[in-house]
Amino acid sequence: MKILMCVPNISEGKDKKLVAGAADAIRAVEGIKLLEVSSDRDHNRSVFSYLGEPEKVLAATKKLADLVLKEIDMSGHRGDHPRMGALDVVPFIPVRQVSNDEAIEIARSFGSYLGAKGVPVYYYEDAAASPQRKNLADIRKGQYEALPVKLKDPAWAPDEGPASFNATAGVTAVGVRFPLIAFNINLDTTDLSVADRIARGIRHLGGGYRHVRAIAVNLEDKGMVQVSMNLTNYSKTPIHRVMETVRSEAACYGVSVASAEVVGPVPLESLVAVARFYLQAHDFTVDQIIEANLLK
Amino acid sequence: MKILMCVPNISEGKDKKLVAGAADAIRAVEGIKLLEVSSDRDHNRSVFSYLGEPEKVLAATKKLADLVLKEIDMSGHRGDHPRMGALDVVPFIPVRQVSNDEAIEIARSFGSYLGAKGVPVYYYEDAAASPQRKNLADIRKGQYEALPVKLKDPAWAPDEGPASFNATAGVTAVGVRFPLIAFNINLDTTDLSVADRIARGIRHLGGGYRHVRAIAVNLEDKGMVQVSMNLTNYSKTPIHRVMETVRSEAACYGVSVASAEVVGPVPLESLVAVARFYLQAHDFTVDQIIEANLLK
Repeated sequence: MKILMCVPNISEGKDKKLVAGAADAIRAVEGIKLLEVSSDRDHNRSVFSYLGEPEKVLAATKKLADLVLKEIDMSGHRGDHPRMGALDVVPFIPVRQVSNDEAIEIARSFGSYLGAKGVPVYYYEDAAASPQRKNLADIRKGQYEALPVKLKDPAWAPDEGPASFNATAGVTAVGVRFPLIAFNINLDTTDLSVADRIARGIRHLGGGYRHVRAIAVNLEDKGMVQVSMNLTNYSKTPIHRVMETVRSEAACYGVSVASAEVVGPVPLESLVAVARFYLQAHDFTVDQIIEANLLK
Repeated sequence: MKILMCVPNISEGKDKKLVAGAADAIRAVEGIKLLEVSSDRDHNRSVFSYLGEPEKVLAATKKLADLVLKEIDMSGHRGDHPRMGALDVVPFIPVRQVSNDEAIEIARSFGSYLGAKGVPVYYYEDAAASPQRKNLADIRKGQYEALPVKLKDPAWAPDEGPASFNATAGVTAVGVRFPLIAFNINLDTTDLSVADRIARGIRHLGGGYRHVRAIAVNLEDKGMVQVSMNLTNYSKTPIHRVMETVRSEAACYGVSVASAEVVGPVPLESLVAVARFYLQAHDFTVDQIIEANLLK
């Protein structure tokens, strides 16, 4: 069974009825599992997280789009979080047996659906049509209010839909990205500089692993410091390699790892890789997990 | 979602049509996933492996029993493997969110179903009604041919069904056991005595871990030796503890672990425990695995 995840953000965080209706629209698609809905009043924004087979995720996302484009009018929208559209950002995330190419195909299919409805669309991250559009923050610069001017700039011609301002819908960013793993390692010291030096060393920016973002955090309550990380591609920069590198760097200061935290959801494959490494079970596969057979 | 597994053995390994019919009967129960069917001509015996929610596994096992009791006549059975009945042995195995007590309830319900059909039943392992009946080998002593006499012995009065010989059906052993994990560790030496000393030390019989059975195996082709193990309760004697103990014992002889093998299927929880240990992620749970949400 192929599993794709989608985590769309919509520009409405106060109207509970609208958000519940959107959740129902997603759930109504057979084979879709809605994992989470969270709304933020100050951001005036809601996030949905659901998964299923790629075609079904596409269908559910279209249902969500239909509802959101009908109900949300961006011309009156206020909120603390940067935003450009009613359906603001739609990342598709391959979870199981879905290649990036397949996910990009789904993203493009969804983008052209939105375009045909008169919504300008920018593709970002792995779905980006050009390197300048990879980064969501670049695309979102100036937000909704900048769109009337931005859409006239040939450099910002949309990837789908009309190159003209749609006052009610705004613009939607549609992307594909790898599942992100939030992984924090707590060090048995109160010296923040140790965590800071390790974070700088392990992150891509500082010359470290390509798919690691890291900062040092002081956990005063616990009398510890933390290397707080996002692993943006667990298959190329696996959890265990990060763990062992942090451990060995810490040991250089005479500091040991007190504990660690995997925050939020992770794909099964990332865990199997951990077991494969530490048990030296080189041939161990996901299919050997009994429960995985029920996903087939 | 609760998941129970069942791995019945039937006394027919040659009649392909009968075995295919039995597989169909199991598959016909909605919500049941048939993982494997394997037949052995010399043993004249077939093994089915399937899983699903407990009540559905019970239903599928009844369907299997109906067919097997109708089609197999033990009075003419020949085969190399020890056996007592047409439906020879029926172990129920808790995989996910099923307690031993729940599994025992299912086993008892199935046993009484068989008993009502006139088949004498012995409960074994965790479903055993007394310590003398825990061990399947003890129950099976003398095999089918010994049943006419054995069933008259008050010490071997069946747990369900009549205390009289059923020539066509024989006797069925119904049990509950924990999922067994086959785990082999390969050592980078040709000295079998190293593996042998480690196997003797780590297994329950030799004073080692309660839920470990272990032997030493010579892997001549690979120029290595192996500690070959069955872990009979991964929650009480977890994989990582066995791994690290073998590693440290081997190091005492200057020998290192070359690789390891997890053979066959394992429950997800056993793997999560491995990650929890090696990543020191004390609070990591099965529910954090994205795919696990699809099992709910």
